[in-house]
Amino acid sequence: MKLAVLGAGAVGRSVAELAQEYGHTVTALADSTSAAVDSGGIDVEAVLARKNDDETVGTVAPNTVFEGEYDVLVEATPTTLGDAQPGFNHARAALESDHHVVLANKGPVAERYDDLRAVEAESDGRVLFEATVGGAIPVLSTIADVGPDNVTAVRGVLNGTANFILSRMAAEGLSYEHVLAEAQDLGVAEADPSFDVDGTDAALKCVILANVLFDGQYTIGDAEIAGIRDLPGSALELASEDGWTIRLVGEVARDGVRVGPRLVPENGTLAVSGTRNIVQFETKHAGRLNISGRGAGGPETASAVLSDVTTLAREE
Amino acid sequence: MKLAVLGAGAVGRSVAELAQEYGHTVTALADSTSAAVDSGGIDVEAVLARKNDDETVGTVAPNTVFEGEYDVLVEATPTTLGDAQPGFNHARAALESDHHVVLANKGPVAERYDDLRAVEAESDGRVLFEATVGGAIPVLSTIADVGPDNVTAVRGVLNGTANFILSRMAAEGLSYEHVLAEAQDLGVAEADPSFDVDGTDAALKCVILANVLFDGQYTIGDAEIAGIRDLPGSALELASEDGWTIRLVGEVARDGVRVGPRLVPENGTLAVSGTRNIVQFETKHAGRLNISGRGAGGPETASAVLSDVTTLAREE
Repeated sequence: MKLAVLGAGAVGRSVAELAQEYGHTVTALADSTSAAVDSGGIDVEAVLARKNDDETVGTVAPNTVFEGEYDVLVEATPTTLGDAQPGFNHARAALESDHHVVLANKGPVAERYDDLRAVEAESDGRVLFEATVGGAIPVLSTIADVGPDNVTAVRGVLNGTANFILSRMAAEGLSYEHVLAEAQDLGVAEADPSFDVDGTDAALKCVILANVLFDGQYTIGDAEIAGIRDLPGSALELASEDGWTIRLVGEVARDGVRVGPRLVPENGTLAVSGTRNIVQFETKHAGRLNISGRGAGGPETASAVLSDVTTLAREE
Repeated sequence: MKLAVLGAGAVGRSVAELAQEYGHTVTALADSTSAAVDSGGIDVEAVLARKNDDETVGTVAPNTVFEGEYDVLVEATPTTLGDAQPGFNHARAALESDHHVVLANKGPVAERYDDLRAVEAESDGRVLFEATVGGAIPVLSTIADVGPDNVTAVRGVLNGTANFILSRMAAEGLSYEHVLAEAQDLGVAEADPSFDVDGTDAALKCVILANVLFDGQYTIGDAEIAGIRDLPGSALELASEDGWTIRLVGEVARDGVRVGPRLVPENGTLAVSGTRNIVQFETKHAGRLNISGRGAGGPETASAVLSDVTTLAREE
């Protein structure tokens, strides 16, 4: 398939770098100020080198991407809340011209799911978004495999940054501030970590799951969210005395989404360590299903994007 | 879809009982001596009641099933090694008349994978077999989601009976014989437990995975197998002193399949407890993926069979 990639952050870059190995061609790559477009396939290495040197990927305006030749728009610009712009308009433009869309950007499926599905319904293109929940973990494909009607509830640890901080606080008896600084040094937490530590990112993923499982209408406004910023180290120590620990757990049910620090058994399934994520499905006839793996990272998230592209290619 | 179900053991019965809830109709159910066939749909409850009373499901010969009307043959007769009969012939008969086949029987895909694929290639029908590996865990669908080319190796705990015995031996310091008797009382182990405790069942599942990942040609002859029958309780005690335990682990790689008791960290991911199964995939770009759940049981395995039927229905 010919891929037009919007966004040249860690995920967009990795998609461009791995596309060929998955049998696809990148015909466009854009960041927020410029684009490289070539219907025969751009020279990914040269374009990324240029980006490293000048900070622009190309010489034409970003919107030129929509005029080029492509089968699938890969939307990997930063997630935004509320109107989910500009991601939503990008997806709409691709669908209105009957192209497929694969999202790594959570905004359009968390905040404007019903609008997006309405645009998709009028298009010959489809929208897939495996990469928006759980990074490399095939969470949405597993729901499709098991059948959405057979999943009664979902629970999970869906933010690697918060999980890294909680794991380290528990293991080393360190304070939140100390571990946050360490995580920032390691590149595991951003300079402004709010999106991760306040639970917003985990909540968006839970909202996406609610939309998929319960036919839309959910936004982050339906989520009850508590973060880990004010969690004292003493809470973790106290929990540990009785064999428990604390994780930032997201819960998805028909009546809404909840995210917050929860006590979980120290050696239990939910107590994944470091930046790992885990998702637990409760099913009607098959009990509980757990799936864990790397929840973030450029190549990891790109592998989910490229799985979606492969699904679309198989259906052509 | 119209389902013809061969085999009226735990899995066949559960498929028949749950089919309607998944939107399908059972038009035939056969055990080894008789069949009930009705192209408008058999009365599942009455047929199973009859089976409970007389031990025969119907009044016609089992092979009458192939003359009736059906879209998918569900093959849930007992797994046999070597020529994988009669399961293989059942699957062939259905494919040769352009019907789909969903296997719960491991024999045809473990022992005669290439033969089966050859018959499938000449048919308008397809063969799916999610239920043969990991019961309710969507192991094969996950491989399809991630892409078989991206999976470099698989490791897992794939036999619930052996895992129950090892978990109990470790937790209670009991002997193999003691726990086996307990498992037999609970219905977790069969009267003749060889298939499970000698590693045959786990090895068949690994062989199926090798066939799927590495394009066929594997049979149980390619597996190096050790069971748990001779494992002394003292080995588990010794392991535990250093934070380890023992699990019956299957390993799948291009050069073959190995199954045997292995030391694993006591609180590690592979140390699932009781009858649970777990599968670990090593991937090219997405690190390690773990998936765990119920690896056996009538309704659990039936849910995997019915997922396959849903996949076939979606593709019609």
